[in-house]
Amino acid sequence: MTDKLTIWTYDWVPAGPRGFVRDLRLRWAAEEAGLAYDVRTIAFDDRQTNHLDRQPYGQVPFLDDGEVRLFESGACLLHMSRKSEALMPRDARGEADTLQWVVSALNSIEMVTVPWWFLEVSGHEENGLTGWMDQRLAHLEAVLREREWLAADRFTVADLLMADVLRVKKLRAHGERPATEAYVARVTARPAFLKARADQLAHFAAADEQRTGG
Amino acid sequence: MTDKLTIWTYDWVPAGPRGFVRDLRLRWAAEEAGLAYDVRTIAFDDRQTNHLDRQPYGQVPFLDDGEVRLFESGACLLHMSRKSEALMPRDARGEADTLQWVVSALNSIEMVTVPWWFLEVSGHEENGLTGWMDQRLAHLEAVLREREWLAADRFTVADLLMADVLRVKKLRAHGERPATEAYVARVTARPAFLKARADQLAHFAAADEQRTGG
Repeated sequence: MTDKLTIWTYDWVPAGPRGFVRDLRLRWAAEEAGLAYDVRTIAFDDRQTNHLDRQPYGQVPFLDDGEVRLFESGACLLHMSRKSEALMPRDARGEADTLQWVVSALNSIEMVTVPWWFLEVSGHEENGLTGWMDQRLAHLEAVLREREWLAADRFTVADLLMADVLRVKKLRAHGERPATEAYVARVTARPAFLKARADQLAHFAAADEQRTGG
Repeated sequence: MTDKLTIWTYDWVPAGPRGFVRDLRLRWAAEEAGLAYDVRTIAFDDRQTNHLDRQPYGQVPFLDDGEVRLFESGACLLHMSRKSEALMPRDARGEADTLQWVVSALNSIEMVTVPWWFLEVSGHEENGLTGWMDQRLAHLEAVLREREWLAADRFTVADLLMADVLRVKKLRAHGERPATEAYVARVTARPAFLKARADQLAHFAAADEQRTGG
């Protein structure tokens, strides 16, 4: 069997990012779609240089699918979506609808939320991105007030990605967006998310034991 | 004929963004691929509210392709890539390679360069994203020192997008990245880019005449 996916992540990370390392997005998609997968690791300690041939910025995740290898979680999700209608509808309109919301999560929402988060945690007193982010999230809140799922009137990989972008704790603590909050709660209640998160937490907990144990 | 694309942009923009409004990405892709297209417009003046049903953040571009309608320039480019091998190879490895670099431009490079640019132009004295951006662009410089095109040993839509991300003036004026500079010069020397940019500049120049004329 060569059609098993391999999801690559770090062998260990500190407590902070556990439950948020982006291999979770790929685990979650594989669980939704019923795709078989292994998880393999590269060392966290030398991450700046030890896998630049696989991920040019020294990050995770990346994915092996037989001869096909790719990085960028968003690209991996789109690649996996070709394998299962559970992630993306097969009709042209449903596919385009899903695609636009996947890119929207990556390039309209995360493009401001991740740098905003970066400025927050790196101790900048005045976060110059707050106004812009508030505006973007208000636009999204207006969309989510009108619908249960972003694309094609059903759960798709766009919801998986957008909910993962929006569930960041600092972001949820900033501002009042009830429709967004209900959306995140709804999408992250899915069994596939809960399994993916539990598996990631268990993976890093086991790494702790190896570090402190024999 | 219903297989002509319609690219939507603003009816007018101020001088600053001309040559950089993102309908250029779609014009450029259509020119590379030889896809027939029209350009239509929505009003710049009421953009916060006048087309939220087509673009939930009040931006451009968006695309019509018969019954398929989508927003997000990155999503439009991926959609257009299905129509022409000129934009994306058809073999599984070449396709995944292109896809990962398209998402990399959107979610690893533009995710830091656009907010960095935003902080610069909005007059923040200390740009807290500079260190992070320098690191990302140094990683990309290392990649571009080793190859002429990002994916599949040929021009693809990933180069179109990455070069468009990198050609921003403030970014090019910040730091010394000779391989990146040569890459941007190489990709933006393509006739399809030059035609797309000339067409966008002519479109907005004509709008000036309408505003000041009869």
